[in-house]
Amino acid sequence: MPGIHCEALRALPQIRAGDDLAALIAAVLPDDLGDVDLVAVAHKVVSKAEGRTRRLAEVEPGERARALGAERDRDPRLVQAVLDESVELLSVRGPLICVTRHGFVCANAGVDRSNAAGEDELILLPEDPDATARRLRDGIEAARGVRPAVIVTDSFGRAWRTGQVDVAIGVAGLSPVDTWAGRPDAFGRELHATSIAVADGAAAAADLARAKDSSQPVVLVRGLGRYVTPEDGPGAAPLRRAPEDDLFR
Amino acid sequence: MPGIHCEALRALPQIRAGDDLAALIAAVLPDDLGDVDLVAVAHKVVSKAEGRTRRLAEVEPGERARALGAERDRDPRLVQAVLDESVELLSVRGPLICVTRHGFVCANAGVDRSNAAGEDELILLPEDPDATARRLRDGIEAARGVRPAVIVTDSFGRAWRTGQVDVAIGVAGLSPVDTWAGRPDAFGRELHATSIAVADGAAAAADLARAKDSSQPVVLVRGLGRYVTPEDGPGAAPLRRAPEDDLFR
Repeated sequence: MPGIHCEALRALPQIRAGDDLAALIAAVLPDDLGDVDLVAVAHKVVSKAEGRTRRLAEVEPGERARALGAERDRDPRLVQAVLDESVELLSVRGPLICVTRHGFVCANAGVDRSNAAGEDELILLPEDPDATARRLRDGIEAARGVRPAVIVTDSFGRAWRTGQVDVAIGVAGLSPVDTWAGRPDAFGRELHATSIAVADGAAAAADLARAKDSSQPVVLVRGLGRYVTPEDGPGAAPLRRAPEDDLFR
Repeated sequence: MPGIHCEALRALPQIRAGDDLAALIAAVLPDDLGDVDLVAVAHKVVSKAEGRTRRLAEVEPGERARALGAERDRDPRLVQAVLDESVELLSVRGPLICVTRHGFVCANAGVDRSNAAGEDELILLPEDPDATARRLRDGIEAARGVRPAVIVTDSFGRAWRTGQVDVAIGVAGLSPVDTWAGRPDAFGRELHATSIAVADGAAAAADLARAKDSSQPVVLVRGLGRYVTPEDGPGAAPLRRAPEDDLFR
C-alpha cells in the first residue's frame, strides 16, 4: 500500500461564466500527472464557470420564502433561491435542510454566498455535477494527454456530528463506493454490509490539503489508483441513499 | 501548504486483552516520527487490548432483545449486546441506529463481529475513546520521545448517503473542529457558520490508505501539524452534535 497523498495546486484566476475551466485546471496540474491520479475540484469554481450563480437583487421572493424568511430573520430572497434549488425540505427548524434537484440532502440546497465575486452574488450547485466531472476529465485529457479521475466536491454538514466534511457531488472515473459485503475479512469470514464511500473519503482528504480562504479549489489526490477506472462510471449517484432506504427523511 | 500524506503501517500482531498497545504501535511508527504527525488507530485493536469484547454465547437476551431479534431475524443475543451499549434507539426500521453511551449515533452501537478472533466474539467500542487516545499518546511519547497527535477511528454510516466513512471517536492533541465562522474568506467577507470537522476528515483520509482486510489498524497522517496541539485538548466531544441542536434525533 503506497499511501495517499493530497496536494493543493496553485490558485486559479478568478473564474467567470464561460471560462474553460478544464484548461485552467490542466494548466496547474503537475508535469508527472498520471492516469491513476484523482483531481478534486471544489464546486464553486465549477458553478462560476457554468454560470450557476444568481444576483440576490434579481430574486423575487414568493409567499413561502417571505414566511420562512420572516420566521427565521433571513433575507426572503435568499430563502427563495434555496427553495428554487430544492424539491423537498426535510427540516425548517434550524438551517433549511433540503433535498436538492439532484437528490442530495444538504443545508440551504448548497446555495452559498461565501467567496462570491460580488457582495450579492449567490453560488448554486452545478446543474449536473457528474456531467461536469466527465467534461473536466475529457478536457484535462485533451489538454494533457492523460486521463485522471475527477470529482467535484462540496462541504456538507452531517446529522449527529458537528462540522462539515467535503463530499463528492460529481464523479467521473472513480468507483464511488467500494462494497465489501460478502468479501472475506482478515479472518476469512463474511463482512456484513460494509462498503466504503471512497469518493467521499477522497473529497474529505482533499479538503484537508487546502485552507478555506486560500482560493485553491483544485487538489491532486494520489494513491487511489485501484479505484480509478478508464470508463467514467456511475458518477455520484451510488452515494445518494435512495429515499426508500433512508431512515432519516 | 505542503500536502497531506497518509501511510498504513505494517500489521500489528494479533491483539489480546492486556496487551500494551501503545508499545506495539510505537514499534511500527517510522524513525522520523515527529510531534506534528498524527497517528490514526482503528478502534478494534483498542477494544481488543482493553478487553472490550464479549462472547456471544455469554449474552443473555432480555425481552426487548428477543422481540427486536424476532422482528428482524437477527440473533437476539447480538441485539442484546447492542442494547447494552446504547442509551437510546433512534431507528429500528432498518439497522438499529443507536445513541451510544458516549453520545455517538451509529448503527448497532458500534458492536461488530468482523475481524474478531473467535467466531462468536463481539467487539464493542472502547469505554472512553478520548482517554484511550490520551493514553496512546503518552505511551508513544514514553517509547519514542516524540508526541504525535492520536485519533481512534471507527467506520460510521451516514444519513442520506450510502457507504461508510471513518470518523474520529477519540482524539488527543488534535483540534477536532476548525471553526471559520467570523473569519474572513478570500474576499474578506464573513463566512457563515463554516467549520471543518478536521478529525473526521483525517479519519476518512487515513482509512483510504489501508485495505479493510489488511490488518493494518495504524495509519500515519502527515501534513496536519497546524491542527496538532501540545495539550491533549477537548477530545472528540466537540464532534458530537448536542441533542438539542440536532435536527435528526
